Amino acid sequence: MLPQIFTIADLHARYAEGSLTPLALVDEVLQRIAASTDKAVWISRVSDAALRDAARALMKAGSPSANQPLWGIPFAVKDNIDCAGLDTTAACPSFAYRPQEDAAVVARLRAAGALLIGKTNLDQFATGLNGTRSPYGAPRSVFDSRYISGGSSSGSAVSVAAGQVCFSLGTDTAGSGRVPASFNNLIGIKPTKGLLPAHGVVPACRSLDCVTVFAATTRDADQVRRIAQGDDVRDPYARTAPQRPLPVSGFRFAVLPAAQREFYGDNEAALLYTESIERLKGLGGVAVDFDYTPFREAASLLYSGGFVAERLEPLREFIHGRAAEMDATVYRIISGASRFTAADLFADMTTLTALRRKTDAAWTQFDLMLLPTSPTTYRVDEMQADPVQLNSRLGLYTNFVNLLDCCAVAVPAGFRKNGLPFGVSLIAPAFADDALAVLAERLHRSGAFGLGIDRDATILESTMSIPVHSDDRIVIAVVGAHLTGMPLNHELTGPGGTLVRKARTTKNYRFYVLPNTTPKKPGLIYAPDAEGPGIELELWSLPAAAFGQFVARIPSPLGIGKLKLEDGTEASGFLCEAYAVVGAQEITELGGWRAYLANAAAK
Amino acid sequence: MLPQIFTIADLHARYAEGSLTPLALVDEVLQRIAASTDKAVWISRVSDAALRDAARALMKAGSPSANQPLWGIPFAVKDNIDCAGLDTTAACPSFAYRPQEDAAVVARLRAAGALLIGKTNLDQFATGLNGTRSPYGAPRSVFDSRYISGGSSSGSAVSVAAGQVCFSLGTDTAGSGRVPASFNNLIGIKPTKGLLPAHGVVPACRSLDCVTVFAATTRDADQVRRIAQGDDVRDPYARTAPQRPLPVSGFRFAVLPAAQREFYGDNEAALLYTESIERLKGLGGVAVDFDYTPFREAASLLYSGGFVAERLEPLREFIHGRAAEMDATVYRIISGASRFTAADLFADMTTLTALRRKTDAAWTQFDLMLLPTSPTTYRVDEMQADPVQLNSRLGLYTNFVNLLDCCAVAVPAGFRKNGLPFGVSLIAPAFADDALAVLAERLHRSGAFGLGIDRDATILESTMSIPVHSDDRIVIAVVGAHLTGMPLNHELTGPGGTLVRKARTTKNYRFYVLPNTTPKKPGLIYAPDAEGPGIELELWSLPAAAFGQFVARIPSPLGIGKLKLEDGTEASGFLCEAYAVVGAQEITELGGWRAYLANAAAK
Repeated sequence: MLPQIFTIADLHARYAEGSLTPLALVDEVLQRIAASTDKAVWISRVSDAALRDAARALMKAGSPSANQPLWGIPFAVKDNIDCAGLDTTAACPSFAYRPQEDAAVVARLRAAGALLIGKTNLDQFATGLNGTRSPYGAPRSVFDSRYISGGSSSGSAVSVAAGQVCFSLGTDTAGSGRVPASFNNLIGIKPTKGLLPAHGVVPACRSLDCVTVFAATTRDADQVRRIAQGDDVRDPYARTAPQRPLPVSGFRFAVLPAAQREFYGDNEAALLYTESIERLKGLGGVAVDFDYTPFREAASLLYSGGFVAERLEPLREFIHGRAAEMDATVYRIISGASRFTAADLFADMTTLTALRRKTDAAWTQFDLMLLPTSPTTYRVDEMQADPVQLNSRLGLYTNFVNLLDCCAVAVPAGFRKNGLPFGVSLIAPAFADDALAVLAERLHRSGAFGLGIDRDATILESTMSIPVHSDDRIVIAVVGAHLTGMPLNHELTGPGGTLVRKARTTKNYRFYVLPNTTPKKPGLIYAPDAEGPGIELELWSLPAAAFGQFVARIPSPLGIGKLKLEDGTEASGFLCEAYAVVGAQEITELGGWRAYLANAAAK
Repeated sequence: MLPQIFTIADLHARYAEGSLTPLALVDEVLQRIAASTDKAVWISRVSDAALRDAARALMKAGSPSANQPLWGIPFAVKDNIDCAGLDTTAACPSFAYRPQEDAAVVARLRAAGALLIGKTNLDQFATGLNGTRSPYGAPRSVFDSRYISGGSSSGSAVSVAAGQVCFSLGTDTAGSGRVPASFNNLIGIKPTKGLLPAHGVVPACRSLDCVTVFAATTRDADQVRRIAQGDDVRDPYARTAPQRPLPVSGFRFAVLPAAQREFYGDNEAALLYTESIERLKGLGGVAVDFDYTPFREAASLLYSGGFVAERLEPLREFIHGRAAEMDATVYRIISGASRFTAADLFADMTTLTALRRKTDAAWTQFDLMLLPTSPTTYRVDEMQADPVQLNSRLGLYTNFVNLLDCCAVAVPAGFRKNGLPFGVSLIAPAFADDALAVLAERLHRSGAFGLGIDRDATILESTMSIPVHSDDRIVIAVVGAHLTGMPLNHELTGPGGTLVRKARTTKNYRFYVLPNTTPKKPGLIYAPDAEGPGIELELWSLPAAAFGQFVARIPSPLGIGKLKLEDGTEASGFLCEAYAVVGAQEITELGGWRAYLANAAAK
């Protein structure tokens, strides 16, 4: 029997052992959708026959592979993202059109073998964080049908959390890819703006919109994100840049100070937030209080002034005379933006720029943030009674993220006594997506909250690791005065170096005390015929430019070459010119610089 | 007798030898201003008595020094930049206010010993490129009083070109710091946006405005720019970033293709542009044709759509009912911007973002641009008869520069037969200010156009040099397969490496052919007792990160240490682990890898 919640690894294992085929999976998916009592999840679906044809085509084409890493994996797409052959409605029937081609991200996922099941419900024009603003009905939290699913990517989240698909695409301008994750016990990856191209996506705010990924595990969501990402010239706002790493240990994470923790009376949410802080500390993080004020002020700009007119811009022609055809709240928000002038917007842009200076300064104090995803949640009837005010509460901790150019991952963080899930978000400045996913995965695993609707499911062991070897970081082996606690260690920590691990050279090295050096330094020489104990070293990761500066400052007779390590790998590291050890004291037998210093001190 | 045009070096030499004092200089400046027939240059001046007091205070305080590099240097400030004690009018009398403190840049220049003479005329609210839009009159080109001075920094340019002050501050949104330079035979430095803080500057377009510097020589303008630059938290748009170098030789400069050279019938301007291209080639540049279309389209956005509303934003309150108190054209432009909505502006921002993708792609084909500063110039009566159309022509090649985040230097480029000067601009992406100034200085010196109004003046020898050793570049010595023309040279040129010079090691090196290497590589070993010929090498400059990546890729037994050069200096460069040359062929006596390869080929 298939598990309640799909994961890529599980499905691929079943495909590999022959206990499942894409065709059988399609039947299971159709059965689950048919059995669901929540009929507001899907706006349109690939026909049953077409789905079976697609499954058969995959089965002809092969099997899970490096070329098709999503082979046979069922997914859903928010209905503001084009899929050839299905209408794009943006949850507004009179807006609907039939696209000729897939959105860029959808095309990439299909090319990777993923099986499109259909298009999911959303807050109309992706305007909302609650999931009730749609003529196709309001999807509900999979944990309690009285409660909102969160939005705007409502159906995308529910389809994954209910076990109908393995992953789904959402979009996120103000929090639409994170809030529904937190209300349905899912991971929601909100990538850096522009990392996933928006070609074929109905714009909400073109300069802020992000395509997002929902999945039950970080590993799955992150794999999908990596496949979907990459430049597309058809999207003016697409961007590329090297990924930035985060520290592997001792990372500093910002937490709301007590006075700024607003949960609107949801005390259990407050407790679950505190618990998540403790769990992140347990993973090696250092919690840092910070002032949320400038971030909240930036967040409030998104709807209070000229910025909201970016929602109007693509709909200026469409919206005329459509009041009756649109969700009343959405219409009020979007049409109301016509009152802002270009000069108003410039004033708001200056306000945001000034706030950005404050938030940039704040970011020097921590590497990431741990915030509640939403402070609380509401029943559908509560939301419908107060649709603007309660919606705005949901975005208290999400609205600033795109305006201030951050990436984020929403992570499950436990359940209230009433069975409703709570979630937190890890947030970092742009282009830390790779590293943030690794921390999110660890944080997720540090709880035991199940997967989506299945609270008893466990997360499979993951192969994710901190990407310290990313293109813009270089690992260097140090053997002497740069070791932790030694006089020159600051030359590594100062420019952002982080300790990767301790290691040892092969036995083919000789180790000497260099005469006339201050501070005292050793010299390491490769000697193919040596049979020593190997020399202790530390591997540090440095930004490439800092590594370059570091190498350029090394005085002769030292230099940087390649060291052979005991474990069979190689690393850039300190070498010494041979002339300098002529007549020097050899300390190879001590096996390292620490042992030599301890020895010398004891004498 | 003092020269007609002031330069810092000349004034400081006179101060040093005692032939001039700041007090005597003040008398000379006052005399020159009084003698001038152009009464539209100044809006307000420091009183004669206060000027003499300031000169006396300087004389008490010392002399030109590292602390006061502008000691006793007279300067003017455009009257949209605050100077404590003088009104700021922005050339609109009813807007005038008396600031309590200097603008950030003015404070820095005064702290460096510069002597403020007064505030200069401008196109009202810095809106214009011609200099006729002011109730304080229209300053004229110093070469022909029938002709416009250019604007909006009209008085600032004329005060320098006429020899009344040594340098002046302007501002530049669409070209206001460059066009008047070209009409008055001056250098106009338009720094990277945000490099000089705008605190205390009346905004034109806050996100685009730049404080600029006019001087007769690049050296002077650049020195002032360096003193005035630096972050100021009071300016939300201030920015800091490391300076980027430009290639020292073989730099690629974009030139307008024949079909896109628009000079509005000014054939002499066209010829002078062609001459300037030849001169830049003579300085080691390689001319590259490019398509100006996306740049021109970006330029046209500045006044044709929502972007113009940034001019309105700071004046929304002021402008009500002021039509009669304002220049008619300026009023029409600024008040007309109220018709643009925030949604209009978002649409234009998307258009600009899409154009930016095209221009970013274009920039990979060249390192800088050489464009006409203005295609042509006009008489004051012509300008007044057609104030919008002719003004817009003046900005054909300047309007895009701030919108697309470039820095620029306007450089004199000769004279038409009628005695009116023509100018060109060197343009590069942001934060290439340091390097661009060096090229501008060389280009300026390659002509013989005098200084400002003095066509016979010569430019003093300069100490400016290409900053290849800047913090974010590292020089590496290569001795083998990375030399120019060798198989691995692309590893240097690919990531932006530039050849600095050829050199040679000291005699204390031994040189070997490493066995089993592909491509074939040499090994260099320091040997204190050796008496060889020294080994030929090339010094290449690489961005620090690229240098880091380069080092990390070097396979053993090679590495990077310090090489001792024949000229007594040291450089990072290739070394070889000693074990690898045991039994290898020694080729020290050949003195280099090229000689070895030639030798081997001959055999």
